[in-house]
Amino acid sequence: MRLLDLYAKMKHDLNVIESELEATMTSDHALLSETSLHLLKAGGKRIRPVFVLLAGKFGNYNLDELKKVAVALELIHMASLVHDDVIDDADTRRGQLTVKSRWDNRIAMYTGDYIHAKALLTITDLQVPQVHQVLSKAMVQMCIGEMEQIRDFFNTRQTVRNYFLRIRRKTALLIAISCQLGAIAAGCSNTTAQNLYRFGYNVGMAFQIGDDLLDLCGTEKQIGKPPGSDIRQGNITLPVLFALEDPEVADSLLPEIERIRNTEGQAGTVRALELIKQSSGIARAEELAERYIAKAVRALEELPTISAKKNLTDIAGFIAKRNY
Amino acid sequence: MRLLDLYAKMKHDLNVIESELEATMTSDHALLSETSLHLLKAGGKRIRPVFVLLAGKFGNYNLDELKKVAVALELIHMASLVHDDVIDDADTRRGQLTVKSRWDNRIAMYTGDYIHAKALLTITDLQVPQVHQVLSKAMVQMCIGEMEQIRDFFNTRQTVRNYFLRIRRKTALLIAISCQLGAIAAGCSNTTAQNLYRFGYNVGMAFQIGDDLLDLCGTEKQIGKPPGSDIRQGNITLPVLFALEDPEVADSLLPEIERIRNTEGQAGTVRALELIKQSSGIARAEELAERYIAKAVRALEELPTISAKKNLTDIAGFIAKRNY
Repeated sequence: MRLLDLYAKMKHDLNVIESELEATMTSDHALLSETSLHLLKAGGKRIRPVFVLLAGKFGNYNLDELKKVAVALELIHMASLVHDDVIDDADTRRGQLTVKSRWDNRIAMYTGDYIHAKALLTITDLQVPQVHQVLSKAMVQMCIGEMEQIRDFFNTRQTVRNYFLRIRRKTALLIAISCQLGAIAAGCSNTTAQNLYRFGYNVGMAFQIGDDLLDLCGTEKQIGKPPGSDIRQGNITLPVLFALEDPEVADSLLPEIERIRNTEGQAGTVRALELIKQSSGIARAEELAERYIAKAVRALEELPTISAKKNLTDIAGFIAKRNY
Repeated sequence: MRLLDLYAKMKHDLNVIESELEATMTSDHALLSETSLHLLKAGGKRIRPVFVLLAGKFGNYNLDELKKVAVALELIHMASLVHDDVIDDADTRRGQLTVKSRWDNRIAMYTGDYIHAKALLTITDLQVPQVHQVLSKAMVQMCIGEMEQIRDFFNTRQTVRNYFLRIRRKTALLIAISCQLGAIAAGCSNTTAQNLYRFGYNVGMAFQIGDDLLDLCGTEKQIGKPPGSDIRQGNITLPVLFALEDPEVADSLLPEIERIRNTEGQAGTVRALELIKQSSGIARAEELAERYIAKAVRALEELPTISAKKNLTDIAGFIAKRNY
């Protein structure tokens, strides 16, 4: 099955989520509605809602309950994007102007806060204390991850372990709990919820490595923003760390990163990207992403053979091929 | 009773809250601990915890439960301060460097997000769904209030009603729910919780009017930042709106505000403050604050005569005299 076929199959339920997202973002405050809907309309893969719904299939699938979890998780993701764009000083996202660029940083900060608050309001409708706890714990970790990213900017001596801890908090956790909370909201057993968490966690790690590879190797059309954005802002990702371990490249790459760091405004990254692509960094990062995908698929082994299991396995496959 | 005597009387319980605040802010991430504790150490009146505890006295006073509510509300307040300082570009708060000034805007934004998330994590320990709902609704309104403040910057034609709606969301709501949630956590009846909410709401309105007056009439030592900060950043407060209705002053004040608006960097506000103080705006705003205080005290009428009732009335009196 192709990814598009899966989305087509889930179309009805994803449309419900989409309407709910839109209804949630339409506030009585004109500017806030406008900024939030701007972001919503820019689209996105809605991968977190997809995981919530598929995880829910392993229990009592009740869309009215699951949609609250799905909407809350997508909103938390969106809120973090708005704040990221302030930090990254990013002008475009998904091929559209960012909130901070179309309006300003202050408006983007409060838009993020507002979307966050709306996410919480949505989830409080669900009277399962465990859901609130899992969610707020993850939110704390996500903030730590964002802070670590700032701390690690342009740190070419950070370890690979450092990178993994960071993307764990920044990305993998929210995908992991999308699976876990979908299961919990559907009344699955703890074991099932834990297996789905492990699936989401490993898929999330692979997903972020894939994203980081795409930022180096993709085209502007594919990424929705210019390639090399990560390195320009100082975000040293896995392929770069591996490239720095490659003796063929390290001596030329280090001063190139230093130059980018010291350039005021938009530094050129063509030479740095060339060097990284010549190195063994790309292949090594791809290999690690595939290992995470394999782990994700293994986490599903004990689960009953229903079509959602096949769907999750397929999605893991798409992510492995970065075919999304 | 003086305010200090009340704090002395509540010292044990407030110390418990203070330790809990500190423990909550001490994370495994060094920089986040540092930024959050920096803010905590700058002190503050902890008025929201005081209200939570006093409201709790009308039910089954259980400090272990109430402290979660008190800590969460104080943290939400603190998070909003950190984000405000980014927006206001404020260098000092409570006489100390702000997070955004000692570190930078990015770090301040994530520190705010982190403190927010910690607040939620603290409150999820309390397994009362109504508490989560009341809290997240208030958070949404607070964000709208912040956004309205930005929208209304330098708008000298805004109505007094506009100002009231804004401070309702920005300040009064959080104080209102401090009282309400203290009551709910202590198992009070709905009527009691509603009366306490009304008390907090009216006290909160008076409190913000008092704060706005202080920014115009206080000294740097009293305020912890230079007077006239509001007007410098474009925040048109009640005494200013009233001054603009005073024919003796309006014609000179309007161009003065326009000049401040058009000045790059730190505009002088001496002349504007002089004009406002000459106008009837100060007295009219004071009178309105007193009316809110009277309403607050009336909201307590039906409550049982326990010492907490006397304490709340006393606090309302201190706020009326801006004697805090």
